[in-house]
Formats: sequence, structure tokens, C-alpha cells
Amino acid sequence: MTAPKPLALSKEELQAFLDEVFPQVREDFVVEALEPMAIEMRLPVREKHLRPGGTVSGPAMFALCDVAVYAVLLAMIGKKALAVTTNCSLDFMRKPQAGKDLIAKCELLKLGRVLAIGDVRLYSQGDERPVARATMTYSIPPK
Amino acid sequence: MTAPKPLALSKEELQAFLDEVFPQVREDFVVEALEPMAIEMRLPVREKHLRPGGTVSGPAMFALCDVAVYAVLLAMIGKKALAVTTNCSLDFMRKPQAGKDLIAKCELLKLGRVLAIGDVRLYSQGDERPVARATMTYSIPPK
Amino acid sequence: MTAPKPLALSKEELQAFLDEVFPQVREDFVVEALEPMAIEMRLPVREKHLRPGGTVSGPAMFALCDVAVYAVLLAMIGKKALAVTTNCSLDFMRKPQAGKDLIAKCELLKLGRVLAIGDVRLYSQGDERPVARATMTYSIPPK
Amino acid sequence: MTAPKPLALSKEELQAFLDEVFPQVREDFVVEALEPMAIEMRLPVREKHLRPGGTVSGPAMFALCDVAVYAVLLAMIGKKALAVTTNCSLDFMRKPQAGKDLIAKCELLKLGRVLAIGDVRLYSQGDERPVARATMTYSIPPK
Repeated sequence: MTAPKPLALSKEELQAFLDEVFPQVREDFVVEALEPMAIEMRLPVREKHLRPGGTVSGPAMFALCDVAVYAVLLAMIGKKALAVTTNCSLDFMRKPQAGKDLIAKCELLKLGRVLAIGDVRLYSQGDERPVARATMTYSIPPK
Repeated sequence: MTAPKPLALSKEELQAFLDEVFPQVREDFVVEALEPMAIEMRLPVREKHLRPGGTVSGPAMFALCDVAVYAVLLAMIGKKALAVTTNCSLDFMRKPQAGKDLIAKCELLKLGRVLAIGDVRLYSQGDERPVARATMTYSIPPK
Repeated sequence: MTAPKPLALSKEELQAFLDEVFPQVREDFVVEALEPMAIEMRLPVREKHLRPGGTVSGPAMFALCDVAVYAVLLAMIGKKALAVTTNCSLDFMRKPQAGKDLIAKCELLKLGRVLAIGDVRLYSQGDERPVARATMTYSIPPK
Repeated sequence: MTAPKPLALSKEELQAFLDEVFPQVREDFVVEALEPMAIEMRLPVREKHLRPGGTVSGPAMFALCDVAVYAVLLAMIGKKALAVTTNCSLDFMRKPQAGKDLIAKCELLKLGRVLAIGDVRLYSQGDERPVARATMTYSIPPK
């Protein structure tokens, strides 16, 4: 077995870079934990993320999954803001709990030369049953 | 061949209902055309939908696809605000053009008793090459 | 508007190449019609494709969708047997009719330098309601 | 936290039922391990599953994922041969190794009244990097 690739960015460098390239969503996505090929991120749920009934909106869940894969990819390959999502599949399985932050646990399953694939599970903080799962593919631009 | 099911809501009734149940996104989604099993919707792209470089954000594209399928489903089955998205697949194929509205052309491929499936293609207004495609599955609650 | 790219292979050249590279499935996949960026293929349904109840198996439907996208891609870029499927999403919407061939109508939505994306709808011959839909992404190897 | 639901079928009862309802694929799918909400299955790879170059075919990988989710679903809800696949997403990430069996590790993420969702990762026996991942949704018929 080969050793996993090391991180190119620390947790602090990654958070700072995300804040810089996504100023408009700076307060939405917090890096909770980072290790090679895996990340945990948190969406502090606020009024703007909600739908009638108090549930978190689909676009907010999509955004959290998308950012989690992007973030762990950047942490592995370094600051390349141009990686783009090419595909995603999402399953919404349970209604997120009102008043709870959303937690994304993301694993990078493939880190190739041109494609990276990440798997994400979303949880309402404090509940171990996933509310959604997603797989996102990113295309990595040539140098 | 069987005749297609008729619309339960007119274009005006549908737009009014969407405005009522999604007040926070009222100005984002415009019903352009409606017929049985098909709808065309428009996202008037504004600053808040953009990413650096002037491209429309992934969450905004997800939201437009999701609303288009929801809207044509409601137009067919009547006002049932509780239908929920259970699955989606999305392919992002080209960068949307800066300064152009996004157009969703949506077809309902299946309208079953418990599941409905819609296919969507997104276009930058005036360009015939799709920027993205999506398939969304909705679960219809029992009466 | 730009003119579409032309075909690199004729319908006969394509069928001959498929028969050569997939000898084990030679009798399974027939090119019915071919034009730039679009193809129609047929699966002559036989005993081995069926599941109990007379319905066509999921793997047989997957295979037909996969081959249809591969075939139209080859028809556009020429004989490159090494293009590989990287992603697929499939929705099974209706039970295929027993005793009817399956027809795949496939459109290539994107033909990029490294990725190609095709959309497929499957029909039981003679029925206009799709039994399934699929989107397949192919990775095109560098020259 | 609630205790997980118990198994309705033992590993032996499940294998016997699969052999009975899928006689044509009896030798293809072996239940390796079973616990509540999770299963491991093996595809003993043979000539008929291969593509040129010695790699396992896409339809064979699809079939293994599909059967794994079906099997763990049956193991949880009992013998209901009529559950049907409604959706799948698949990512092919690495070329399976020639001459190695394929192992499916499957987790049931949701077991609802009408829908069940399972996540699968495929491995070439002895290699810890997944060759593919899949999510399959099954519709459970009413009693």
C-alpha cells in the first residue's frame, strides 16, 4: 500500500483562501477538521437558508456539499481557484432539523490528474443519521 | 396513445402560488411558458447569483432546476406545497454567459402516484447550447 | 451559430468497429440511425436480457445506454476504443414491455477535449413513453 | 439514539432466496457478510464479465451494485421480490484489476416506508482503493 498524499494547505490556510475567493459566502462555511483526503465543514444555519417549515433549503445543502469537495481538493492540490464542478448526484433522505447547524463529512475518493471525486454526507448537528448524501466531480484545469 | 393529462393550474395561478410559498425567492423565478408536462422558467441573473469571473453559481443553477420541476409538478397535480425533492443529478457542461439570464426548459418525464421525475436543460438566454442539465425526482405525499 | 461538427465515421463504419471491439456483444447492439451528435440504437431483447416477470434487466438497460453514448462519441471523434465511462446517472421510470425490443435515443450534449456527455432515453419499441433515462460521461484519453 | 432495526433474513436465508429469484445469475453473486443495514457481496469474475484489456465490464459492475442494495433491503424487510430500482448514480474511478474478484461493500442509508437508498463501494479484492461507487434507490411496493 502507498502512503496517502500529504496536505498542501493547512486548515488555517484553507479557511483563509476560501474567505478570499468566496467573500460573499464567507460566513456560511466553516472548516471544522481537515486531514489528507478528508474534511469536515459546518454551515451555521440562518434564516436565509431556511424554507417554510423551518427546513434547510436544497440549494443551501447543495452549496455545502459543493464547497466541502472543493475545499478538500484545494487542500490537497494547493490554491487553484479554477477547479470546476462538472457533475453531482444528490440524495435527500431526511428533513434537516430546524435550529441545528448542518455538518458535511467529506471524503475524496479519487484525486486524479484531471478529475477528482468526493463523497459527502450531511448531518444535522448531534444526529447520526445522514439527512443527505452527495457525490461531486471536479475537473482540474491543466497547469 | 393516451391523451396527456391536463393542467391543474394556469400559468398565472402557478406564478401566484410560487410567490406565496417561496416569498424569499419571489423575484428569482419567472414562469415563461407552461403546457401539460412542460415548463420554461427564467432566472433574472443578479449580483447575488454570481461567482468570481461573472459566472452563475452552482447553487443558483441547482435552485432554478429544482424550482422548474416543482413548478410543473404543481401545475399538474394542484397546490400541494409538500412535494419534496428526493434525488437529483446535475451535469455542468459550459460556463454560463455573464450578463445573460438563465433559462430552464423542463419536461416532466414521469408523473406517478408517489414519484415524479423531471428533466431540465439550462441555457444562457440567446445561446442554444445547454450550460447544464439536471434530472430531479420528487416524492408526492399521500393525500 | 456555429455549424455542428461532422461525423468522423459513417453508420456502417461505426457498426463494423463496434462488432470488432465488442465481439461478445455483437448481436446485442444495432445502430439504427446516426447523425452528427445523435444516434438511435436497438437492443433485440432475448431471453438472456430478461428478469422474472418478462421485464428487461437493469444491467441490459445500462449496457444499451452506455454503448449508445460510446457509439455516437466514436462516430464523432473516430476510432478510439479507449474512451471510458466515468459517471452515469439512470432513472428507471416504467417497466419495459415484454417481447418488445428496446430503443435508445441518444444525444451528445457536450463534446469537449477531455469529457463528453450524452443523454439517452430508452423506449419499448412502439411506445412513446420513456422506460428509462440516462446521462453518461466519457473521459477521452489524450492523443 | 434508537437501536437499529434487526435483520429479517439470515445470511443463509438471503443467499437461498437470491438463488431462487435470480436463477440465471446464481453463480455471480455471493453474500460474504451481512449485518443490519450493511452487506458485503462478491462477484467471482469470469470471462463473460470482462472487456478487452481484461477489465470488468460496466454492466457487471452495475449489476453487482444493484444486487447488493437489493439483497440488504430484502434482508431487512423480508422476501419481497418486487422492490424495483428507480434511480442510480455511478462513478467509475479506477480500472478494476484483471484476475481479481470484485467486492461490493454496501450500506443502507435510508429504509423508509416507500423508498430505500443504499450506498456501495466496489473494490478489486485485496486493494483498498475503490474502483467505483454507486448509490441506488429502490421503491418498495405497498403491502
